[in-house]
Amino acid sequence: MLVLVTYDVSTETAAGRRRLRQVAKVCQNYGQRVQKSVFECQVDAAMQALLEADLLSVINEQEDNLRIYRLTEPLSRNVREFGKFKATDFEGPLIL
Amino acid sequence: MLVLVTYDVSTETAAGRRRLRQVAKVCQNYGQRVQKSVFECQVDAAMQALLEADLLSVINEQEDNLRIYRLTEPLSRNVREFGKFKATDFEGPLIL
Repeated sequence: MLVLVTYDVSTETAAGRRRLRQVAKVCQNYGQRVQKSVFECQVDAAMQALLEADLLSVINEQEDNLRIYRLTEPLSRNVREFGKFKATDFEGPLIL
Repeated sequence: MLVLVTYDVSTETAAGRRRLRQVAKVCQNYGQRVQKSVFECQVDAAMQALLEADLLSVINEQEDNLRIYRLTEPLSRNVREFGKFKATDFEGPLIL
């Protein structure tokens, strides 16, 4: 199944930016980054449990918010994209 | 149907922050904000077309990225939430 991981953390602190990089690293083992804090991951139930455990080891539950949504497939018929499709540098500010 | 609007814009510029506020205002006419740049909206096909038109009038297509995903319902069985559920101030930095 396809899940969307969305992650809310302040990137105004070095610690927040570090956690976002770590979240991205975890998610990239399961899928792809599509926005600064949004990742599409193809998983089965067992992989989703692993993904969640990996993410929970990284995030700060007192400060961050993490949501994992089940998407409707096929994705191509169930997503609409607008604007700039690929940010070039997810680690830095998106717009300089 | 339930759709998830995710929006990528730099909030490091005043113009970006202004666009994020405008996107939030549009989305709040259709649903609720769940993260700084993530909104859950309940729409039918006609409302989704209106939502998209409203959003396109606000975003900067050269600089921002906007994605609208169809979620799998019922939401209660198809979303997992972790960490801090509600940020108190979506207009400011999430973590001070």
